[in-house]
Amino acid sequence: MKPWEKNIRRVTPYTPGEQPKDKNIIKLNTNENPYEPSPKVAEKYREIQDLRLYPDPKVEELIHALAVYHGLEDNQVFVGVGSDDVIAMSFLTFFNGELPVCFPDISYSFYDVWADLYKIPYTVKPLDEDFRIRVKDYEEKNGGVIFPNPNAPTGICENLEFVRQMLAENQDVVVIVDEAYIDFGGESALSLLDEYENLLVIRTFSKSRSLAGLRIGYAMGNSALIHALNAVKHSYNSYTMSRPAILLGVASVEDDAYFKETNRKIIETREWFSKELDRLGFTYPKSGANFVFATHKYLPAKEIFEKAKAAGIYVRYFDKPRIDNYLRITIGTKEQMEKLVKFLETLCTSVDGSVM
Amino acid sequence: MKPWEKNIRRVTPYTPGEQPKDKNIIKLNTNENPYEPSPKVAEKYREIQDLRLYPDPKVEELIHALAVYHGLEDNQVFVGVGSDDVIAMSFLTFFNGELPVCFPDISYSFYDVWADLYKIPYTVKPLDEDFRIRVKDYEEKNGGVIFPNPNAPTGICENLEFVRQMLAENQDVVVIVDEAYIDFGGESALSLLDEYENLLVIRTFSKSRSLAGLRIGYAMGNSALIHALNAVKHSYNSYTMSRPAILLGVASVEDDAYFKETNRKIIETREWFSKELDRLGFTYPKSGANFVFATHKYLPAKEIFEKAKAAGIYVRYFDKPRIDNYLRITIGTKEQMEKLVKFLETLCTSVDGSVM
Repeated sequence: MKPWEKNIRRVTPYTPGEQPKDKNIIKLNTNENPYEPSPKVAEKYREIQDLRLYPDPKVEELIHALAVYHGLEDNQVFVGVGSDDVIAMSFLTFFNGELPVCFPDISYSFYDVWADLYKIPYTVKPLDEDFRIRVKDYEEKNGGVIFPNPNAPTGICENLEFVRQMLAENQDVVVIVDEAYIDFGGESALSLLDEYENLLVIRTFSKSRSLAGLRIGYAMGNSALIHALNAVKHSYNSYTMSRPAILLGVASVEDDAYFKETNRKIIETREWFSKELDRLGFTYPKSGANFVFATHKYLPAKEIFEKAKAAGIYVRYFDKPRIDNYLRITIGTKEQMEKLVKFLETLCTSVDGSVM
Repeated sequence: MKPWEKNIRRVTPYTPGEQPKDKNIIKLNTNENPYEPSPKVAEKYREIQDLRLYPDPKVEELIHALAVYHGLEDNQVFVGVGSDDVIAMSFLTFFNGELPVCFPDISYSFYDVWADLYKIPYTVKPLDEDFRIRVKDYEEKNGGVIFPNPNAPTGICENLEFVRQMLAENQDVVVIVDEAYIDFGGESALSLLDEYENLLVIRTFSKSRSLAGLRIGYAMGNSALIHALNAVKHSYNSYTMSRPAILLGVASVEDDAYFKETNRKIIETREWFSKELDRLGFTYPKSGANFVFATHKYLPAKEIFEKAKAAGIYVRYFDKPRIDNYLRITIGTKEQMEKLVKFLETLCTSVDGSVM
């Protein structure tokens, strides 16, 4: 047994009733309803067929599309209800040891919540003064490591060499790289999968694939990790992925040109918007995500947040230690960002010309 | 604090970014993508709008539709990804005591799995020789009670007086009645909600509403129970319900005439099919569900299962103690059941006329 396998939760997966694909079969084995849903539902779903039947519990179609897309085998991909579901399932599956799991203090806000929920010990590692993760903080013996790359809400993307170092220092536990925002210009850890069998890379359809409303996330890693995730998932709820999610998820993966084009536009808008922020007196870590994490030299973040909201522009403010003078601003369309810039211009000018 | 409140899991719910309904707001606060998904996805989803945006984490529209439908307040309804998700969440939320949770030995096969997963102690209570639940088995001090009504895979539906007795004997713990199959003619425990604040009634859209492919389940109970469920849910994953599920779920609830009509047809077919089973030498507990749990006087269930499968008719066989000579046969359309009857007729005749 590999050291990182010791902390994998042991479960007996449930065997769901068979879901044959042959339409001629008279299927009376899983208590589905033989009648279509209300025609009013039918009017809405149109092409999303067979809603009365359970979805494929193995989600094979979507897993295969993702595996092909990333040049992996089907048994290296796990799919869940958004990356939240995939990460929570990974905590439950891989972090069953006595030693604390490590993650940054300023990071995705659910890591500590899931650890608490599953009674997993953990230690938060403060980012340095430039909001960077320090590999040396993760060198002591631990029960696992998870960090987002790019990190959120800072937007900072570390390079492949950084991820490799993190893995080199943590070969006895599962290391999870949460790549929710990687498609906005970052270097993915995927190329390290062959080298590190304890690496799990997690992605989402909610950001770069514009499908937050569908709830799809996925994990990639060696087949032993994926097998363990599936065992835990199927011991809990085999049918989490809806038919619309599977069908539309595949359609998204298959249209790569559109995916690349919209990501390119967001990166372009981000770079333009960053320069505008410079001009307006903001500072921010260089972003590798679809948001910028910015602070102003005079204006308190909370005040900007409230005034922007009153003007119909929503950005995110976190009332938390170290980051309570920052705003996390999602990159919208160029037109939306121009409106925001105009708003900020007025706000900053009124300050420079009067109070300050 | 009420006794049953002692076992409720304490968590701090997460506050998601705001999801304003006003379309004029420039929404840059939750890192969604400003561009529509691939037009190939758009072609498929048609009327399911705004897939690029997160769904409403409070699922207000669907909860409200269900509350109105059942004559409850919105704060008495909790929605999840199929009743599996709702029941698992209920285990996690309500069964945190030292005493074992009780449920029948022959019952929904996930109860013990979830108890194991969450390290919840439990005791299974054998059904009597007629496959009935005995209230007296649930009278000793315990950490909670859950049972399906109608029970699965037996199909037996107990009356309201039975449920009332179960509640009367278990007032210090949460009692969950899993009513996945109640719409096929059973008496719901809903009318007892005012009387017993420790009662939680769970339903699904997968059977009577023909929407197994969408993944929707829900729980009804007093607002304290629902509040606790929401707290646990939001500490784990706020965005489990997809936009298609919410939108199409509401459409289903609003078309009550269709719902009642399809349920009526299934009940009618079940009653006809039961008589055919009598004629063919099967016995079965009287069913209150959309399936019949049947055993034949000569033919082994496993043999029927395999031969039916070879003939393109899938029914369910469980290789488990006490029920390994039974088949769980879902009620399909009248035409499907006629084909099954014809198949069984041939099978039984060949036995009666030769081997037996």
